[in-house]
Amino acid sequence: MNQLRVSSGRVLRPDGRVERADVAVDRDEGTIRAVGSPDEVDDTLDGAAAEALDASGSLVIPGLVNAHTHVAMTLLRGYADDKPLDPWLREDIWPAEAELTPDDVEAGAELGAVEMIRSGTTAFADMYFAMDRVADAVDRAGLRARLGHGVVTVGKDDADARADVEESLAVARELDGAADGRIRTAFMPHSLTTVGEEFLREGVAEAREAGVPVHLHANETTDEVEPIVEERGERPIAYADDLDALGPDDFFAHGVHVDDSEIDRLAAAGTAVVHCPASNMKLASGMAPVQRLREGGVTVALGTDGAASNNDLDLFDEMRDAAMLGKLAADDASAVPAEAVVEMATQGGADALNLPGGRIEEGAAADLAVVDLDAPHLTPVHDPVSHLAYAARGSDVRHTVCDGQVLMRDREVLTLNAEAVQKRAAAAASDLVDRVESA
Amino acid sequence: MNQLRVSSGRVLRPDGRVERADVAVDRDEGTIRAVGSPDEVDDTLDGAAAEALDASGSLVIPGLVNAHTHVAMTLLRGYADDKPLDPWLREDIWPAEAELTPDDVEAGAELGAVEMIRSGTTAFADMYFAMDRVADAVDRAGLRARLGHGVVTVGKDDADARADVEESLAVARELDGAADGRIRTAFMPHSLTTVGEEFLREGVAEAREAGVPVHLHANETTDEVEPIVEERGERPIAYADDLDALGPDDFFAHGVHVDDSEIDRLAAAGTAVVHCPASNMKLASGMAPVQRLREGGVTVALGTDGAASNNDLDLFDEMRDAAMLGKLAADDASAVPAEAVVEMATQGGADALNLPGGRIEEGAAADLAVVDLDAPHLTPVHDPVSHLAYAARGSDVRHTVCDGQVLMRDREVLTLNAEAVQKRAAAAASDLVDRVESA
Repeated sequence: MNQLRVSSGRVLRPDGRVERADVAVDRDEGTIRAVGSPDEVDDTLDGAAAEALDASGSLVIPGLVNAHTHVAMTLLRGYADDKPLDPWLREDIWPAEAELTPDDVEAGAELGAVEMIRSGTTAFADMYFAMDRVADAVDRAGLRARLGHGVVTVGKDDADARADVEESLAVARELDGAADGRIRTAFMPHSLTTVGEEFLREGVAEAREAGVPVHLHANETTDEVEPIVEERGERPIAYADDLDALGPDDFFAHGVHVDDSEIDRLAAAGTAVVHCPASNMKLASGMAPVQRLREGGVTVALGTDGAASNNDLDLFDEMRDAAMLGKLAADDASAVPAEAVVEMATQGGADALNLPGGRIEEGAAADLAVVDLDAPHLTPVHDPVSHLAYAARGSDVRHTVCDGQVLMRDREVLTLNAEAVQKRAAAAASDLVDRVESA
Repeated sequence: MNQLRVSSGRVLRPDGRVERADVAVDRDEGTIRAVGSPDEVDDTLDGAAAEALDASGSLVIPGLVNAHTHVAMTLLRGYADDKPLDPWLREDIWPAEAELTPDDVEAGAELGAVEMIRSGTTAFADMYFAMDRVADAVDRAGLRARLGHGVVTVGKDDADARADVEESLAVARELDGAADGRIRTAFMPHSLTTVGEEFLREGVAEAREAGVPVHLHANETTDEVEPIVEERGERPIAYADDLDALGPDDFFAHGVHVDDSEIDRLAAAGTAVVHCPASNMKLASGMAPVQRLREGGVTVALGTDGAASNNDLDLFDEMRDAAMLGKLAADDASAVPAEAVVEMATQGGADALNLPGGRIEEGAAADLAVVDLDAPHLTPVHDPVSHLAYAARGSDVRHTVCDGQVLMRDREVLTLNAEAVQKRAAAAASDLVDRVESA
């Protein structure tokens, strides 16, 4: 057996307890074989030498899950800030995206992969274009992902719109199971207002047939809610239900402006919501009712959204933002506590994306991160779970493991050449700006 | 001349421009002698060898200013979270603080100093107790600070209350000018509701006589506003004005629940507000109207508040929080842009605290930080000011300089033994918990 041992750390268990334990990993299977005392772990290993990852002074946590992003937008990090959503998209982001080549998308996806690995993220959901190139980057990086081509039909003629839907369905069918099964897919209409009803209806029906879930932006701003209410006399989540787009494997990004009836409907359907607190603040979209969503029984995950509205892919920031914004939204300092955001970033993400991982337990996928707690800003350690939510940052991650493979050891990314990736992305971004300016 | 040269970086100038420049520092004077091209800087140096700090691939910024904290509360980082302000104080924080010894305060202050130096902060305002021990830590650390003993008189008999006021005045008189002038002081009544009117009136009058400013918590929660309005028929800032506590060198923490009349009054008086976004979110205190404060002409600085309600002392987090929360508060994604929060964390802090620093220009105090921009999460660099606000974190700081002295070089703190400080603080925190539990 090809083995890995994560030794001498404290381990965050699925029930929220933190205990001293070693973790034995079966690298061939990509699964956790045992979690227990050094002796217990010895018994499960077959005597052959195991690769060791030192976790002394550290906390072993499930690999974090970034459940909504547009990863190649790393190239647009800091490109345009401090503008409302609509002019930001029309004046800055869409013109830049119009110039993005598949090579650029791959360069941006690799940069995002490096950033995620360095900050302990092992799985993500991505809605963008040139998804075969994103898949290549995911494959090389060793990450897990649920990928989809984002569909927009408004402003397109019928043929172009239909082609966009077909592209999304083709990506969903063809990439599903790629990278030794680490890549899964979804049909990804951009939102309920940017894709016409007939395209939504047809696309969802075909997605069901293909056995892939649906991922879209929902209820992000009031501008996304009001037109639907006016036109249809029903709220967006009811409309999604009408479209058969509200299934137990589907997951919606944002859910900022959802009312109680929509929370009930999401919970009943088992559709997850991906909370993106940084993006919602930065674009002044509003405060998602995270405490009410959770109390209502909705699975809530965390997402960074694209790096242009965040401006990073660091789930530690997102946990902190979610805990703090959730309190403000609920007007209650006890709302959305530390353990809730840690659960959202791990189990919630894996459940929303219906991907392995999210829990450190026997038989689970060996997706984990080792967080160094031996640092001034993490001293003292009264409560390691509090530190994950409020004080740790991505740079505190020492090692990252996905599917049993070590992606980063002692802060060095092993699967990608981080320096080359960074240089390539910087050059691509610089060329992109030149093209946009001369367009 | 004892010289320091910060070479090959880009420099953030007081007007917000970023330009390639070297910085020459006169270490004897603790001031910036020149900012310019390598040749220009050569001309200002006197030919003797200068110590060099490499800033290639980096951005040289003014040392950040943490304008409101309780630094020794680092010992209570993560000790109690996710509770509303009142039970959190009564059940957790005050019982723990009752057990804090002067040794503990020094240990916590040293830990905070290490954390601040590592994250590019060079000056802070501190309201706590055992302030002589905080001053010792500041002196050794090489930081700048405005220190004061926090006064609370509610629940105390007249003699104890008076003694607390006297202690604050004595600290303000005796420590002013300590650490070669790097320590200044203030009279620090805790707030307008926790200190009785006669004590406020007397203390402020004596502070004026002693020539020290006033620092207090104001308008942090509605619970702090309503009793004043009910009892006096005027808002807190008007009451502060009545007390003569609204001067041009005074600075108030929080200012969450201020109305337009109070904004006008603060602006007219020249009293600064220290915005503490993380604490305001974590305690669900509310959203300060930062955009309106700034438009109204109020000097706004940034503070972390204590590490128990944050849970770190990293001004990069605070800049990001301020930019994002400020947009939500204004319901406008163009409010509180990146350049505003950078200004608040630098010039705004220095102005609020009336301390040298905050600007990289000839003749200014040589308080600066060098931020490494060569990292995946800071790639590409479309706009370095955006990165300061949205993507950089404390761990990106390479070098920290205060008063011309290098406090950290290549991420190694030089003035304090970071490892020993961390150990001492961890032990003090552990002992503290034991004492609280057996009390």
